[in-house]
Amino acid sequence: MRFFYLYTINLIHMKSRTISELLSQDIIIPEVEIKGWVRTFRANRFIALNDGSTINNIQCVVNFENFDEALLKRITTGAAICVKGELVESQGKGQKVEIQVNELTILGDSDPETYPIQPKKHSFEFLRDNAHLRTRTNTFSAVMRLRSALSFAIHKYFNENGFYYMHAPIITGSDAEGAGEMFQVTSLDTKNPPLNDAGNVDYSKDFFGKETNLTVSGQLEAETYAMSLGKVYTFGPTFRAENSNTSRHLAEFWMIEPEVAFMDLAGNMDLAEDFMKSVITYILENNREDLEFLDNRLQDEDKTKPQAERSDMTLIEKLTFVTDNNFKRVSYTEAIDILRNCKLNKKKKFKYLIDEWGTDLQSEHERYLVEKHFKCPVILFDYPANIKAFYMRLNDDGKTVRAMDILFPGIGEIVGGAQREERLDVLKQRMAAINIPEEDLWWYLDLRKYGTAVHSGFGLGFERLVMFATGMSNIRDVIPFPRTPQNAEF
Amino acid sequence: MRFFYLYTINLIHMKSRTISELLSQDIIIPEVEIKGWVRTFRANRFIALNDGSTINNIQCVVNFENFDEALLKRITTGAAICVKGELVESQGKGQKVEIQVNELTILGDSDPETYPIQPKKHSFEFLRDNAHLRTRTNTFSAVMRLRSALSFAIHKYFNENGFYYMHAPIITGSDAEGAGEMFQVTSLDTKNPPLNDAGNVDYSKDFFGKETNLTVSGQLEAETYAMSLGKVYTFGPTFRAENSNTSRHLAEFWMIEPEVAFMDLAGNMDLAEDFMKSVITYILENNREDLEFLDNRLQDEDKTKPQAERSDMTLIEKLTFVTDNNFKRVSYTEAIDILRNCKLNKKKKFKYLIDEWGTDLQSEHERYLVEKHFKCPVILFDYPANIKAFYMRLNDDGKTVRAMDILFPGIGEIVGGAQREERLDVLKQRMAAINIPEEDLWWYLDLRKYGTAVHSGFGLGFERLVMFATGMSNIRDVIPFPRTPQNAEF
Repeated sequence: MRFFYLYTINLIHMKSRTISELLSQDIIIPEVEIKGWVRTFRANRFIALNDGSTINNIQCVVNFENFDEALLKRITTGAAICVKGELVESQGKGQKVEIQVNELTILGDSDPETYPIQPKKHSFEFLRDNAHLRTRTNTFSAVMRLRSALSFAIHKYFNENGFYYMHAPIITGSDAEGAGEMFQVTSLDTKNPPLNDAGNVDYSKDFFGKETNLTVSGQLEAETYAMSLGKVYTFGPTFRAENSNTSRHLAEFWMIEPEVAFMDLAGNMDLAEDFMKSVITYILENNREDLEFLDNRLQDEDKTKPQAERSDMTLIEKLTFVTDNNFKRVSYTEAIDILRNCKLNKKKKFKYLIDEWGTDLQSEHERYLVEKHFKCPVILFDYPANIKAFYMRLNDDGKTVRAMDILFPGIGEIVGGAQREERLDVLKQRMAAINIPEEDLWWYLDLRKYGTAVHSGFGLGFERLVMFATGMSNIRDVIPFPRTPQNAEF
Repeated sequence: MRFFYLYTINLIHMKSRTISELLSQDIIIPEVEIKGWVRTFRANRFIALNDGSTINNIQCVVNFENFDEALLKRITTGAAICVKGELVESQGKGQKVEIQVNELTILGDSDPETYPIQPKKHSFEFLRDNAHLRTRTNTFSAVMRLRSALSFAIHKYFNENGFYYMHAPIITGSDAEGAGEMFQVTSLDTKNPPLNDAGNVDYSKDFFGKETNLTVSGQLEAETYAMSLGKVYTFGPTFRAENSNTSRHLAEFWMIEPEVAFMDLAGNMDLAEDFMKSVITYILENNREDLEFLDNRLQDEDKTKPQAERSDMTLIEKLTFVTDNNFKRVSYTEAIDILRNCKLNKKKKFKYLIDEWGTDLQSEHERYLVEKHFKCPVILFDYPANIKAFYMRLNDDGKTVRAMDILFPGIGEIVGGAQREERLDVLKQRMAAINIPEEDLWWYLDLRKYGTAVHSGFGLGFERLVMFATGMSNIRDVIPFPRTPQNAEF
């Protein structure tokens, strides 16, 4: 039996603390005060109290004979309460310590007839409609604590490795990257916009004196900072006005984009692998309880599925699959050979069959390479130029570019990056080929005019990372208030 | 004389390193390789090389007899080069070590005839037009490194104190806060928008099925997370479509907004003071060289001004003024008494004279309180309700709210916060008084219906903090690519 002793230092005497702090105590504390929200109240005696600091509730034991019945009736799911009492070793199972309650105050009632978050399983669809309350459930509080931890791990990694954080602009004056449909940003009267002589909307009268949109990527601006500060990264919101109502698309999502001067594609792969391993190691070390909760949730869910649809790996196994394996580096050309000749392709089991070099890979192919063929995370590189962006460095073969994609189990592509085209003449040719006027990117071209150098970077969709790290299957469930077609509530 | 010894471990043998790393060496290294951009090249012999990792250049000494004249001509300001050589103790003044160059490669030329960033003083206006190159100057590289360090210090502070980072939505469906003019976000054809029967723009046909705008604050959404996760903060972009062409306004800026359940206004003041001291201490400890550079820059600039316009404090004195003083807590009512009776007011030296309770304070009043009267940072609290937002908690006097502003030297208000109105009936009355329909904020009201509790938070405009920490006087010079009326370049 553990040794308990009385802790009487004044400093922590009656200070209000978090449940996370109390649950890590190994001592009896004569007087503690804690505030939180009631999860359940059973047998008129046991309150499971949560304050968001941890997935775990603290058990508060009420001797109902000492309290007014009217007060006890107000201890309902969702009510905010303050309890004072003694922190003691728990007699029951499931917790090390509990609070013997001496005083109890209702801070805010929660009408059990109308409170949406009942102590039962709610569908994720229902909880999306109540996104302002869904972090009061175990699943969503765990997901959002992990989202926060991953954010911090990202900043910590870059800070420790000499990178500077740069805020790329959100409102931009050009659709230069052509990465997809953009949202327009305007202050004009949309009902009666000013028109110019040609009868078009006169954007010179708009706030910025020109047509402006929400950014699709901060990469090009990050390159300007890499070519002066050396190693930089962005971490900010990006937008797509694509009308895609799927479990993998958001109109507003967060992206991480490091960019490094004097680094080639091999260095880029080293960086991306080290970075991904580092942030996942961080949550394995710092967020074990939340991960174990989500792991169990997924295993329970799996049991309800037919054998063929169940996961090969548990959540934590997937995370250690990333941290414990070397990422296999394979050229696109090799990958196509493997895929073309594999059984699934020959037996026509792929939805999209692979027959020739130059085709873009689908998630099913990426997952095959990772999960079945190599059995480790994979970095594909040297893609056909015509399926990649204009700013990627052209290889001497004239048909491939120094692009790379990182493929993960269960999810396929999670990181996309490239060595950038540093040669002014080649870059101009590639822009001309897809009709990007040089005037639109004069500042981007300047980087190649004045002190150009090899440089590289990559992009990571943050929500893809949170999905991978939490096992959530719908991207709307890993961002606080998802923006999707027909939905901008809250 | 310092002891130098040969360092021969293979690991760092010829590895490419940053200038920051090399300048911290106390040893001779027989072979180093470094890449960077030429700042100056003088006497055909001394290259000042910078790679952005530090404000300091490394001196690379070229024995011009060993190099081709054509090559030496290409060592111009802004050119990217790679040098290999021996790291030795410097014979000259101003640096501890220097590189004796054995090999030199031009990676990217920089035509001295056209390169915009010449080795001379450029005006900040000129550099704003060349914002893609301005971090190649000492001042802007120092500012942006400090911006990055402050960002990290903020994340570190909150992470260490049990806060969760939450990403508030950027695109929102309501102008509930009424904090100012908003930018509209739309996918409609602005020239020919669909109209409804009443002849108005039919936003049901827009991407989100309703009219949407860019957020002015993430506070209300942060409150939903505080009321489940306990302690949270946002750090993201916010927007104002105000046509203010001043040195203090941006259309796009970043804001930090912590929000804490069960915390009252006194706790909010404690948190804000501790937070501000912590992030400023962080840069004093970690970014000394950049701060000293900017401090000297300001002192030089001051010397060109008439005595009356010079600063009372240097930059670093201002920072330690914040870290070393307790913040004086003063009610708005006391402050009005002090201001009304002070000499400046009586002699009509304020631009805006203080004559009655209820008036809003201007920067000149705030600075008087901080710099002349209290001689320390000041927290004003309990402001008149009618000059503050509807969600601030009404005091029992019925005319003041539990608001607070933190005032800093030189700048005035830097933080604004409040205890939030947690009482459903009072909140509804205050919304009704300014005509905010309850349907618009149904989810915000839910927080008061289900488990409401005292909670508080504050907002800090990140660029205001960067201005304070760097001494820059125009807000356009502390964000990479400023967005202002008539300007969304890059």
